[in-house]
Amino acid sequence: MTRVIHDPTALQAECEAVRRRGGRVGLVPTMGALHDGHLALVGETRRRGATFTALTIFVNPLQFGPNEDFSRYPRTLPGDLRRCQEHGVNLVFAPEPKAMYPDGFATGVSVKGSVTEALEGAFRPGHFEGVTTVVAKLFALVGPSIAAFGRKDYQQWRVLSKMVADLHLPIEMHGMTTVREPDGLAMSSRNRYLSPEQRTKALAIARGLRAAHAAFGAGERDGSALAAIVRAEVEAAFDRIDYVAAADADTLAPLTGPADRLLLAVAAHLGTTRLIDNTVLGEDAAP
Amino acid sequence: MTRVIHDPTALQAECEAVRRRGGRVGLVPTMGALHDGHLALVGETRRRGATFTALTIFVNPLQFGPNEDFSRYPRTLPGDLRRCQEHGVNLVFAPEPKAMYPDGFATGVSVKGSVTEALEGAFRPGHFEGVTTVVAKLFALVGPSIAAFGRKDYQQWRVLSKMVADLHLPIEMHGMTTVREPDGLAMSSRNRYLSPEQRTKALAIARGLRAAHAAFGAGERDGSALAAIVRAEVEAAFDRIDYVAAADADTLAPLTGPADRLLLAVAAHLGTTRLIDNTVLGEDAAP
Repeated sequence: MTRVIHDPTALQAECEAVRRRGGRVGLVPTMGALHDGHLALVGETRRRGATFTALTIFVNPLQFGPNEDFSRYPRTLPGDLRRCQEHGVNLVFAPEPKAMYPDGFATGVSVKGSVTEALEGAFRPGHFEGVTTVVAKLFALVGPSIAAFGRKDYQQWRVLSKMVADLHLPIEMHGMTTVREPDGLAMSSRNRYLSPEQRTKALAIARGLRAAHAAFGAGERDGSALAAIVRAEVEAAFDRIDYVAAADADTLAPLTGPADRLLLAVAAHLGTTRLIDNTVLGEDAAP
Repeated sequence: MTRVIHDPTALQAECEAVRRRGGRVGLVPTMGALHDGHLALVGETRRRGATFTALTIFVNPLQFGPNEDFSRYPRTLPGDLRRCQEHGVNLVFAPEPKAMYPDGFATGVSVKGSVTEALEGAFRPGHFEGVTTVVAKLFALVGPSIAAFGRKDYQQWRVLSKMVADLHLPIEMHGMTTVREPDGLAMSSRNRYLSPEQRTKALAIARGLRAAHAAFGAGERDGSALAAIVRAEVEAAFDRIDYVAAADADTLAPLTGPADRLLLAVAAHLGTTRLIDNTVLGEDAAP
């Protein structure tokens, strides 16, 4: 039976009790509107040895910019809880913003450098500080041994892994391969914003990433050339591009020159919907 | 027997083992050059229920400004270890800076607002971010149930307590009354910098704080008037004053108007030595 907790202190006590019984807690932090990508993370924590899985559902105001989709972000708690129940999640934590950020809240955790400044960081100022701050809090509340994140948000996963390493948090971090729809679209809670016509256009990203994999397989190693292949597809279908870029897969710094392992990352808009996706050439399978 | 550990990973494993055996870890973070004030903190963690006390000795480069005394800060490890042994400290963690901040270290924890911007914050830019970052790391490494800090560094104690509350770290924070020499001088590792003549002059702070307590006892409630009493004493003896100020004892914001509980805080220089001290009127005993 999935237990639902709204109060941070109750969550902390519950997870502490699990640990005291010798349990290993796995954490899956989400913003809700759960899809198969999220639920794959639940399975991952168990495969990695968690005996108790906590999934958090919190649309974190700190990581949204003033003109972003915080207020309309999908909130589907009853359906989310049903899916958690089906997948054997032990505990769902679904706090109100006031419980996470009481009046006078004043603490921030931030990671500096290219890992936060590149790509999303350049288009969403303050986004990653919002992410690292809320996840630091969730880590303190849950005390997980294991935490799982989706690589659809590849940069977020790198930023959080850097935070964990730098602060020496005793948590195993796992980044799971992006789960895709049968036609290649990366699963995202924001896909439900898309009209049927936009849904078709959105496939341009996966098509571009596949083409880049093909070129890479044929020997192309130049980051700019590989990014250009993706850009051509995305440009033809999307209304606006934030970036289509090749980057170092660890530091996220822009890639200059050829590489045998590199990140290709995309952020682009269809109407009022912003989608992101990525692949690591030399590591991931083609989407 | 006090065990000495230099490696963060070994420290984390040791403290994890203590917790797994059902122990409660108490933490006393210091920069070494231990005096009776530090050792009182060890006793405090035990009184508060710690079954295992870890004391850390780390002169943290992050919390020193470029023109401060990082390089000449007293390092007296052999004597410190002897005193830890005498006081039943279970574990001393004494890392090298490189072990705490490997190349590429990029994460910071910071608390915003008056609690970090007032008083020390105005004179030591970046100081408190250095403090919160290193203590967040020590908390992650040690996993204490209890941590004890001296109120000689009153603002530091408030900043760290704010960080703990905001991040929901499961740690009881204790701020211990400042331990003083028989003549009233607050114990400080920096007192050893003082010449005999400066040592005598340094008493002006305690004298000023005592005079303010007397005035407060006689009914004076105005922060500026109370601060002026301290300032007169300090000005007559010290070479330079950074601040002598009345502040809200919780937020550290400058105090305007009368109060029944208020912080009086001092930072002043004798030659190249900077001393700080404070008292909370309406709460502390006179020094």
